[in-house]
Amino acid sequence: MRYHTPSHRQEQARRMASRLARANSIVLTTHMNPDADGAGSAVALLVWLRDRGAEGWFVPPTPLPERYRFLLPEQDWHLSARSAAAARACAAADLVVVVDAGDLRRLGRVKPMVEGRPTVVIDHHTTPVRPIPGDRLVDTGACATAELVYDILMAAGARWTPAIDNALYTAIVDDTGSFAYSNVTPDTHLLAAELVQRGVDVVGIHRQLFESMDVRRLKLLRECLGELRAEDGLSWITVPDQAYRDLKATGDDLEGLVNYPRAIKGVEVAMLFRTTNEGATKVSFRSNGLVDVDGIARSFGGGGHAKAAGALVSRPLEEVRADVVNAARALVRE
Amino acid sequence: MRYHTPSHRQEQARRMASRLARANSIVLTTHMNPDADGAGSAVALLVWLRDRGAEGWFVPPTPLPERYRFLLPEQDWHLSARSAAAARACAAADLVVVVDAGDLRRLGRVKPMVEGRPTVVIDHHTTPVRPIPGDRLVDTGACATAELVYDILMAAGARWTPAIDNALYTAIVDDTGSFAYSNVTPDTHLLAAELVQRGVDVVGIHRQLFESMDVRRLKLLRECLGELRAEDGLSWITVPDQAYRDLKATGDDLEGLVNYPRAIKGVEVAMLFRTTNEGATKVSFRSNGLVDVDGIARSFGGGGHAKAAGALVSRPLEEVRADVVNAARALVRE
Repeated sequence: MRYHTPSHRQEQARRMASRLARANSIVLTTHMNPDADGAGSAVALLVWLRDRGAEGWFVPPTPLPERYRFLLPEQDWHLSARSAAAARACAAADLVVVVDAGDLRRLGRVKPMVEGRPTVVIDHHTTPVRPIPGDRLVDTGACATAELVYDILMAAGARWTPAIDNALYTAIVDDTGSFAYSNVTPDTHLLAAELVQRGVDVVGIHRQLFESMDVRRLKLLRECLGELRAEDGLSWITVPDQAYRDLKATGDDLEGLVNYPRAIKGVEVAMLFRTTNEGATKVSFRSNGLVDVDGIARSFGGGGHAKAAGALVSRPLEEVRADVVNAARALVRE
Repeated sequence: MRYHTPSHRQEQARRMASRLARANSIVLTTHMNPDADGAGSAVALLVWLRDRGAEGWFVPPTPLPERYRFLLPEQDWHLSARSAAAARACAAADLVVVVDAGDLRRLGRVKPMVEGRPTVVIDHHTTPVRPIPGDRLVDTGACATAELVYDILMAAGARWTPAIDNALYTAIVDDTGSFAYSNVTPDTHLLAAELVQRGVDVVGIHRQLFESMDVRRLKLLRECLGELRAEDGLSWITVPDQAYRDLKATGDDLEGLVNYPRAIKGVEVAMLFRTTNEGATKVSFRSNGLVDVDGIARSFGGGGHAKAAGALVSRPLEEVRADVVNAARALVRE
């Protein structure tokens, strides 16, 4: 066994490679709240495109979180979507490359900036409600969009560099929870073997992704654990609003927090409740497999996937929590 | 790239395979406080040996933690070292197989039970101080002892079963922190690709290892986070004795806790302090790379590895902690 682009996407990968290779002025973008797969896939393509002499910029719809900036070999290859430089780059682009997103609604403020420009989509998410128009390389069987980018770079005969290797490896590690999720296939590990062989910084990247906490975050975790509740098959945390403000915490500090109730033995559905700055209630749902949390999120006006979903409800937290917990209780007891 | 037994250990693996295949009555053991690599390596060999008609039992020196029992296809293949059955099995064994340990001092109460019996050692740890006598397959380049067991089973032409696949995969996942530590090589991922291909339960095993917490453990985590201290390059947690008793916590509940101070941005040395039931002070050290914590652990009568070490000091906690923190502070500032 060694990694080969699966036969069903070889032709698409070749077409996408040659389409990208013909572009001279490129804008790469991804979904709002970019994650490591969005950022890593964009950076890997950007490094290759610039290496071959094209102009290119990464313009995510919302700010690139600090913890992914190490992926960029040059910080000024990344432009804030609010900047005049980003507007100019979009207006001049002969190709817009959207990675890790297939739905127009996920492009936020970048959507009007790139509308009508020649566009391609590289993604591993399920069928979008409002598809982004353009050529596509989409495969939900890929563990990460980075796997598809790997195929494109192979098809292109790209010159591999440490920046590309690290960006792809980071994307794969993050999107698979470090090889732990159900999207892991033999190909995931075969790709990782290639990247480790080429010298990616395994320890440094894991530390960057999962072990670069502020003390503030651990203080917030402590306060949140005080609000942990668990009953048969169900567990939830409420973020204490006062502590959140006192600690000057941000949404970033809450990342992964819902994994604590989820990790409790026997829990089928885990939830996280918090009050937003606007006074609405944000609910995150996680399922450990049997219960489809997309359904429950939808019944509260949200949505997502069967195993991870969310909802934003414009009612006070105590009220929403009571309703949601009741609904989840009914589901788990089914 | 695909997985092949590295050439420098092919001959040894063949010799070990034929030595094991000749035995009829086998006792498998590992180090005190068995971990997933010790248990998984023993179970994988045991499944193979029993499959070919031999008698065999797994007799770890201290109890097998509950969370690794799922590895055993039959619970009665495991014997408590305190049982008469274990004593009989050791007395009758024509071969003792020690996995994941090379030093006599790590065999605890099993040591006198197997002394003088024909013994082999399969291990990936560095040179022992008091080596266990017998034939050896030892390679510190293997990410886990399970990698060496894989080689032996390959050399033996063993019939692969789901129990073997799951045991080896579990061992590798645990010993590499799910492919995150510096012991990860391309071979680690190539092996994982083979095992995933054969259908190991990726999600279930990760959940079993890292996400089967008691609520008690999260309550203890909360109390411990209240005792988190951090300064330049240094962070430590003291386990609050009263909370530990009130929650009826066990040493198992503290597993991984030292990773919280370690995960703080900029921390070079992390420590965990607790008072043992006997009133001594137990210190765990973790290094993020630059500082050798084996040295500092030794200066307090303990030891370990450069990145993970421990010490047991028979003085009161406050006293020990002040001394240890001072010593660590001096090291970090060097």
